[in-house]
Amino acid sequence: MRLSRYFLPILKETPKEAEIVSHRLMLRAGMIRQQSAGIYSWLPLGLKVLDKIGDIVREEQNRAGAIEVLMPTLQSADLWRESGRYDDYGEEMLRIKDRNKRDLLYGPTNEEMITEIFRSYVHSYKDLPLNLYHIQWKFRDERRPRFGVMRGREFLMKDAYSFDVDQDRAREAYHRMFVAYLRTYARMGLTAIPMRADSGPIGGDMSHEFIILASTGESQVFCHKDVLDLPIPAEDTDFRGDLKPIVDQWTSFYAATDEKHDEAAFAAVPADKQVSARGIEVGHIFYFGTKYSEPMGAKVAGPDGVVRPVHMGSYGVGVSRLVGAIIEASHDEAGIIWPDSVAPFRVGLINMKPGDAAVDGACERLYADLGRAGVDVLMDDTDTRAGAKFATMDLIGLPWQLIVGPKSLAEGKVELKRRATGERELLTIEAALARLGAK
Amino acid sequence: MRLSRYFLPILKETPKEAEIVSHRLMLRAGMIRQQSAGIYSWLPLGLKVLDKIGDIVREEQNRAGAIEVLMPTLQSADLWRESGRYDDYGEEMLRIKDRNKRDLLYGPTNEEMITEIFRSYVHSYKDLPLNLYHIQWKFRDERRPRFGVMRGREFLMKDAYSFDVDQDRAREAYHRMFVAYLRTYARMGLTAIPMRADSGPIGGDMSHEFIILASTGESQVFCHKDVLDLPIPAEDTDFRGDLKPIVDQWTSFYAATDEKHDEAAFAAVPADKQVSARGIEVGHIFYFGTKYSEPMGAKVAGPDGVVRPVHMGSYGVGVSRLVGAIIEASHDEAGIIWPDSVAPFRVGLINMKPGDAAVDGACERLYADLGRAGVDVLMDDTDTRAGAKFATMDLIGLPWQLIVGPKSLAEGKVELKRRATGERELLTIEAALARLGAK
Repeated sequence: MRLSRYFLPILKETPKEAEIVSHRLMLRAGMIRQQSAGIYSWLPLGLKVLDKIGDIVREEQNRAGAIEVLMPTLQSADLWRESGRYDDYGEEMLRIKDRNKRDLLYGPTNEEMITEIFRSYVHSYKDLPLNLYHIQWKFRDERRPRFGVMRGREFLMKDAYSFDVDQDRAREAYHRMFVAYLRTYARMGLTAIPMRADSGPIGGDMSHEFIILASTGESQVFCHKDVLDLPIPAEDTDFRGDLKPIVDQWTSFYAATDEKHDEAAFAAVPADKQVSARGIEVGHIFYFGTKYSEPMGAKVAGPDGVVRPVHMGSYGVGVSRLVGAIIEASHDEAGIIWPDSVAPFRVGLINMKPGDAAVDGACERLYADLGRAGVDVLMDDTDTRAGAKFATMDLIGLPWQLIVGPKSLAEGKVELKRRATGERELLTIEAALARLGAK
Repeated sequence: MRLSRYFLPILKETPKEAEIVSHRLMLRAGMIRQQSAGIYSWLPLGLKVLDKIGDIVREEQNRAGAIEVLMPTLQSADLWRESGRYDDYGEEMLRIKDRNKRDLLYGPTNEEMITEIFRSYVHSYKDLPLNLYHIQWKFRDERRPRFGVMRGREFLMKDAYSFDVDQDRAREAYHRMFVAYLRTYARMGLTAIPMRADSGPIGGDMSHEFIILASTGESQVFCHKDVLDLPIPAEDTDFRGDLKPIVDQWTSFYAATDEKHDEAAFAAVPADKQVSARGIEVGHIFYFGTKYSEPMGAKVAGPDGVVRPVHMGSYGVGVSRLVGAIIEASHDEAGIIWPDSVAPFRVGLINMKPGDAAVDGACERLYADLGRAGVDVLMDDTDTRAGAKFATMDLIGLPWQLIVGPKSLAEGKVELKRRATGERELLTIEAALARLGAK
């Protein structure tokens, strides 16, 4: 993409309303625009990141055997009356009346609807296990929306729902999502720690929040230091095999949110291994048994012919929130530092002297060669002065900057800068292309 | 994908509520489920088609120089008060109050919001032309939602908005979308005819609906027969060049919807070239000048330094509606016939005798080889009887069926059936793979 034909509305001023760094940087980098309290438009740069995060989530859900569907944003209130949640949900639920005075609501989550889909079609254990997920906009009418996309009202969430014949099979489904989540966050360059979370009235050990550490985190968390260095399950993990050993390894170390923190157990962790930090929740997995299937009549016949309510779990990832969370975890004074896997473009190609035939020629060649090799490039071909170009590239945080100026070019060289480290190298065009995987 | 692990809830009965063939087939093929009047869940098979259509739309928008953003589903009523449309829009607008009693609405379209984005960042002709589009769910509270996804209330639309310094430049933007639309529909296997449409109070010739012919179409349309055979602009069309000759060629033939039909002009078409048929609208492009930029203060400084309201156009494609429209245009008694480009899977691989070692082995090999070659396969590895397997494959309409049974396999052969023509061939496994592009 040529910057001259792109829409990248960089802000020079730091917006006053932004309280945290990710919100500030997303506004300044022209990634989002607030339309109402907690409701944002995603501008081109922001949307590219949002899509890349969604794609990673999708790939790992599919790998774990979950199947993608897409439920609508609006739901019938009657569905929520069946589960009893319509009256319980409180003011965070956005309630709507249509032209025929029927009660609708903007879905804050989809347990009821997916249970309705399940009960309409599935009646036998033979069709299980089943895990259906979707990536769809949700709405929660937060009393105080803030922190940009970190606590918005309209937000994008991946929510998966598993259906199993009994609790043992449901535990296997839970393990599959547990492992998928480890892979999902690792692929985004994040160290996400599964922490025991409140499992509600159902009790038990099958509720984990996935937390990344960041000084701006919303809650206090506690863990054993070694959990930060555990190996991430490989791409060829057999999701139809026994995943318990992986889950056991991860859950053998102390790790808990404030809510579930156990001072005594934490005291047993060696002092030099005690980590107490701020954390950001980026996912939550949860087994809730027959909480919805029972009142809503979602039942399957087991191998013994007896019909029983199906056992369910739900598995959420905050897709739009992750854009902010990644920035909270990866930025410096100059701006964002995107992990390669979610970067909106891989390379920022800076033409230092548009109009200079040699520089233009070199840039066009690099742009074309990188493009052919499938490397996504943003080329700054504008007339802006050099300082501003560098500042913009640092702000938007592309992993690599490739700088083409008349002086180096006269010696046959271009400059390659790694955004994360600031490391710079003078390379021939050939060598630069090779370094970026386009040779 | 193995059918045994997929979620494909085929209905045996034809649903009574479905009045048209696409609605019936989408319900029977397990593509959608109605959740409320005019509000649908997209089940796995339906979602795959919806995504493929969205991807084609996106690729052609990008090729034409439009840039993707994503605006939220909910909008502030204040924005619509600026344009004057909040009070004018009528009952089709879903009006909402949030917990703080602020007026929101579920966007039926996005002229106001995109104008707000534009005016916030762009102030000079130097940043033009600009065309921003998004693919997002919309809501129109239809008095009588019907025909499944063809006239739903919550529906997926691509809407693009162009911004230009004057009407001449706006005409160029219009031409780019005109040509992009020709390519978009052709890639989906559709013959879509641009027809002069009502341009509203602004008048002029810059309003076209794109119509496909189908006997179940909602409106009467009229055109010159030769327009059906015009060449589609090639992939390497230069969208920065002059596209007027292409637009002139397409608009030189008579083609009009009921609304704009001119009996006298149509009578001048040779009798054997007069086509009068039913049509389905699948897109609408529209130049509306300064209708929104003027009241909302979206202005740019021209080359002469004078600040004037920007000239705008809007360009819609009914993405979810297209799923139904394609089925209306391409089906037979047995079910759907997907054009290759939007088919949920390219090949349906039928194991005629699960449990037979030779048949299982051949199926696994075909499944693996096709998968490696990037061919998307749905393998029916279930215990269902042969007749039902064939009926399901015909119903869901994958372009190719590859049938592996013990008898042919004993002679080293498998059967390949083309869904569209019913043509069948006995081929060696090697030859079948080659035919499907996996060799």
